[in-house]
Amino acid sequence: MNKDFSEEMTARIAQVQAIIEKYLPREEGRQKTVIEAMNYSVQAGGKRLRPLLMWETYRMFGGRSEVIEPFMAAIEMIHTYSLVHDDLPAMDNDEYRRGKKTTHAQYGEAMGILAGDGLLNYAFETAAKAFELEPGNAQVGKALSVLAAKAGIHGMLGGQCVDVESEGEPVTEDVLKFIYHLKTGALLESSMLIGAILAGATLSEQERVEQAAGELGLAFQIQDDILDVVSTTEKLGKPVGSDEKNHKTTWVTLFGVEQAGKDVEQLSEHSVALMDALVVKNEFLTWLMLDLIHRKS
Amino acid sequence: MNKDFSEEMTARIAQVQAIIEKYLPREEGRQKTVIEAMNYSVQAGGKRLRPLLMWETYRMFGGRSEVIEPFMAAIEMIHTYSLVHDDLPAMDNDEYRRGKKTTHAQYGEAMGILAGDGLLNYAFETAAKAFELEPGNAQVGKALSVLAAKAGIHGMLGGQCVDVESEGEPVTEDVLKFIYHLKTGALLESSMLIGAILAGATLSEQERVEQAAGELGLAFQIQDDILDVVSTTEKLGKPVGSDEKNHKTTWVTLFGVEQAGKDVEQLSEHSVALMDALVVKNEFLTWLMLDLIHRKS
Repeated sequence: MNKDFSEEMTARIAQVQAIIEKYLPREEGRQKTVIEAMNYSVQAGGKRLRPLLMWETYRMFGGRSEVIEPFMAAIEMIHTYSLVHDDLPAMDNDEYRRGKKTTHAQYGEAMGILAGDGLLNYAFETAAKAFELEPGNAQVGKALSVLAAKAGIHGMLGGQCVDVESEGEPVTEDVLKFIYHLKTGALLESSMLIGAILAGATLSEQERVEQAAGELGLAFQIQDDILDVVSTTEKLGKPVGSDEKNHKTTWVTLFGVEQAGKDVEQLSEHSVALMDALVVKNEFLTWLMLDLIHRKS
Repeated sequence: MNKDFSEEMTARIAQVQAIIEKYLPREEGRQKTVIEAMNYSVQAGGKRLRPLLMWETYRMFGGRSEVIEPFMAAIEMIHTYSLVHDDLPAMDNDEYRRGKKTTHAQYGEAMGILAGDGLLNYAFETAAKAFELEPGNAQVGKALSVLAAKAGIHGMLGGQCVDVESEGEPVTEDVLKFIYHLKTGALLESSMLIGAILAGATLSEQERVEQAAGELGLAFQIQDDILDVVSTTEKLGKPVGSDEKNHKTTWVTLFGVEQAGKDVEQLSEHSVALMDALVVKNEFLTWLMLDLIHRKS
């Protein structure tokens, strides 16, 4: 059973990758450098989880049109812009990510800033293409509102702000939950909620999906904290033990590895149960959600 | 006559300012700092030209609804974000703008980056509120597409990229025109075009307005180059002679002050003539366009 899903996962990721590439800007014109830097950043890898979650939620609610595609590309562009700006010298000052040079290390700091800006802007330019695909679809406007709201000051960017301000300070459980919910959870909520909205899910179904995605995000981030302690650099593709080195408060420093593992278990089970209680089903999405949380890298 | 327009201008700017303030995010929540930094940047001044041009073009074509308001606020947020990121140490490294500390000088570099990101994102979040105001208005989607396209890699940001890459190098007339058209012209095109679109102007009217705005933008930027040479720091509110000091190629270094003055004259007359040839009229907009170009500061 799991083997079938693994194969389906590989096939799906290849399809998602093709959709993302279809919507990347062409590297031409006098402003070619910034476009190259943007595409370099998007192509630097990643598991394409957000567009994948969006697509599967969309299919779960019966969505079958290509109107979802520009939003799939857009959410990956927003995720990528956040990494590009996070890596800047004034932020985390990272030279490498997943074994490749970060954007500013490759293209210089000014172009790193511009490439991030370019990706954020191009995400909305891309999502807006859905209006041309389905001019009469009133859900497109709502999906675009969600895309913007979940990425901004009341979503991902707000979490990033609190994270930056908390650096080097002890962080309480409340603040940590706030940071995780916004910085990590908001884009997962955005992904699954947009899938549901564009497929015409009811308001109460949308609420359910948003809640499930939020709990998934929290579990996902706690699992990240656990892996930083228990995994190896080889498996993870990035240095382990960085949280401890940076004296960072994490779920593990607050509650220990064992309790953190129990919390991941409980949150993920509840998240999947929320989705299971819906009338419509997508077995692959359930598998994907659990795979995300039980990942070893 | 001119005196009446000056008074109308003062009144209009106050109205525009009130609309912008209505759409600024509330400074609350754990992520308060980044919201304060965003609002600080928007409130640091400026003539609100872009929302003013948008509004007057909207009125010219008979627009009377509040659907224009979120777009007026959004274009000012986009303009402001571009200044905040331009001022960063890795870009122009400016500590002061219009006599006030720049955002990163006031809030630190990390918060300067986040405030710019926050403003760009919030611009789309704000513009998307127009969907709630008029859910059935298909022009809102088109206006949002224009807002994104003119700010991005094929608009303002593209011009900024070429400007950054041309630093310290001799620049040809073609490249300079490209930079001016994108970096300065694109947001003026966006402003006037969105006004026309939301008011229901025909496609050929939209094209005319876009062309007029593009020429206005070029004239506006050349006038900026002239003022850097002939004005005083007191009148301009920023240091004059900075282009020469930075060995920057400008319209004045390429063609001299006299020819630059003639080009401003010719471009602005043609821009106004394009608007005058339309069936609908807005005398105040004509005055505003000429005032922009003949400004002394």
